Amino acid sequence: MSRFFSKKYSALVPYVPGEQPKDGSRYVKLNTNESPFPPSEKALAFANEHARRYNLYSDPDCTELKEALADTYGVLKENITVGNGSDEILNFAFMAFCDDEHPAVYADITYGFYKVFAAVNNLPGTVIPLKEDLSLDVETFKNAKGTKFIANPNAPTGIALPTSVIEDILKACPDDVVLVDEAYVDFGAESCVPLIGKYDNLLVVQTFSKSRSMAGARLGFAVGSAGLITDLETIRNSINPYNVNSYTIALGTGTLLDAGYTKARCGDIIENRAEYVSTLKDMGFEMTDSLANFIFVKHPKMPGEEIYLKLKEKGVLVRHFSQDRIEDFNRITIGSMDQLKELAEALSEIIK
Amino acid sequence: MSRFFSKKYSALVPYVPGEQPKDGSRYVKLNTNESPFPPSEKALAFANEHARRYNLYSDPDCTELKEALADTYGVLKENITVGNGSDEILNFAFMAFCDDEHPAVYADITYGFYKVFAAVNNLPGTVIPLKEDLSLDVETFKNAKGTKFIANPNAPTGIALPTSVIEDILKACPDDVVLVDEAYVDFGAESCVPLIGKYDNLLVVQTFSKSRSMAGARLGFAVGSAGLITDLETIRNSINPYNVNSYTIALGTGTLLDAGYTKARCGDIIENRAEYVSTLKDMGFEMTDSLANFIFVKHPKMPGEEIYLKLKEKGVLVRHFSQDRIEDFNRITIGSMDQLKELAEALSEIIK
Repeated sequence: MSRFFSKKYSALVPYVPGEQPKDGSRYVKLNTNESPFPPSEKALAFANEHARRYNLYSDPDCTELKEALADTYGVLKENITVGNGSDEILNFAFMAFCDDEHPAVYADITYGFYKVFAAVNNLPGTVIPLKEDLSLDVETFKNAKGTKFIANPNAPTGIALPTSVIEDILKACPDDVVLVDEAYVDFGAESCVPLIGKYDNLLVVQTFSKSRSMAGARLGFAVGSAGLITDLETIRNSINPYNVNSYTIALGTGTLLDAGYTKARCGDIIENRAEYVSTLKDMGFEMTDSLANFIFVKHPKMPGEEIYLKLKEKGVLVRHFSQDRIEDFNRITIGSMDQLKELAEALSEIIK
Repeated sequence: MSRFFSKKYSALVPYVPGEQPKDGSRYVKLNTNESPFPPSEKALAFANEHARRYNLYSDPDCTELKEALADTYGVLKENITVGNGSDEILNFAFMAFCDDEHPAVYADITYGFYKVFAAVNNLPGTVIPLKEDLSLDVETFKNAKGTKFIANPNAPTGIALPTSVIEDILKACPDDVVLVDEAYVDFGAESCVPLIGKYDNLLVVQTFSKSRSMAGARLGFAVGSAGLITDLETIRNSINPYNVNSYTIALGTGTLLDAGYTKARCGDIIENRAEYVSTLKDMGFEMTDSLANFIFVKHPKMPGEEIYLKLKEKGVLVRHFSQDRIEDFNRITIGSMDQLKELAEALSEIIK
């Protein structure tokens, strides 16, 4: 920290992303919930053909991409905003919808960035512990005043709420924005997007990083009532109006036009997940009931951190969180079947 | 604005970027200071070959790109941070180095985003009017307490300060960060980068959007003392650690490796600028002395807005700012010689 850094950030602790080893190809990389599949050939070809010339600015309105998203989700363009990854949109939402009168409300065990977004924006946060079984404490959420941030499925547990439960929260808190972070929704959980027309306080955030194989291209989006979207656009245009680059606009559009590929790859992940689950259960692992592209597992014979470190030694990266209540767990991305084989081999040497 | 938008933003007025017509190719587009030249073939080939697979996250450290920048500018990697366009980095700098005790200090006529960054971050701003000749009031800058934001060359005037004058400000204000925004430095002005080692309060921000033909790829960077860079990285990692996508990392690196191309294209722009200047002077235009890739011109016979509107009717886009003191001016990007021909033809029909 330099002597010039504003005192308001003296206690700021940045988010720690999963390890990104320089030579990722040496690792069986199951630590950041990336897709094991590349974007489709059609999408890549579309991007190469349609990306605006790079010497010109990207389209600040992202019209073509927003229209493709609107078509995909059966909403209007005015119900959509896009960002440089969903993290950017989440930050805009913290800015737009939280303040001293509207604290950010989120679970103790959830996407670790929420508390950082609250801190970097100097916002009050209300932390609501998950229940003993690591499920969301819905009643306490309903009663907490403020803007709700709910990852559904939750991370790192993978546990999903049915939309009916989210709807209960939306109804109980009509004057609070309820942001549903659906980064992992495409692997079997229910999406709240169909509720957009019904609740003006609902904002759904999704990403192209997981189900659409575009983590490295950086693209996220939000779907919500036109009012909420206007507010997010006001923040976007006050920070970075050209926030999505031309290549990513084109690749995202091409990916949406090839929806069958995304659906098929999500189907592959769901099938692989069943194999990861049964393989690890056979080895004695216990786990939450995940509908995401990862599983959250612990073993009665060995602490989570030890498993994480021993796997890393053997070239397999998973994610361990040194956090109260979940330190026995590791989050393991659902990758390919080849990766499962390598994971299982490594685990069989570690846990005997 | 929705009923949920935080009251702290009730007066927020977003930045208004230059028009980006959907079919830009129909216009002679001289309004957003883009390069008329594409990135080099070598750079594009490098990007296609080296971009990390899109299903994996981009390198959050941007190691390769930072190292290429460090090599280019003769500094260390720890003196560099990168962003999704220089706007993102400017916003991080407003966050990191301004607060109630350290207002943002900038000129009345300068890059229009500074006042928006101050507003969106709820920061106090001190506005220092340019002198009558539209040059920076250096003495008043020296005496103003706070973090200085100086565009050099300034926009939209194009007027550049020699580094010796910036150095005077750095010396006069050793406890204030002085941010020099060098978006337009590569077209003939002096850069402050060589002063980095000498002043720990100096931060230089540059962009790939202008001289490096990458406006649509979105890439900016800052060079400064390791302390200032650490602070910016803390903010970056608290908002969007994967802020630069894989394609742009590779295209930026490839562009730096083909430095001869950038130098040659900047030379072309400088030559073209001389032609734009003499052509418009011959038509009776008055202008500031620009060292940027644009000129800032007015005509004694016609108000600036009228010229702007009539040019637009004829398919030529330039930038007009409805701002006190400069409403008679238009900012015209230095494009190709073909574009100059079309501009001059249109102007000759407008101003008789």
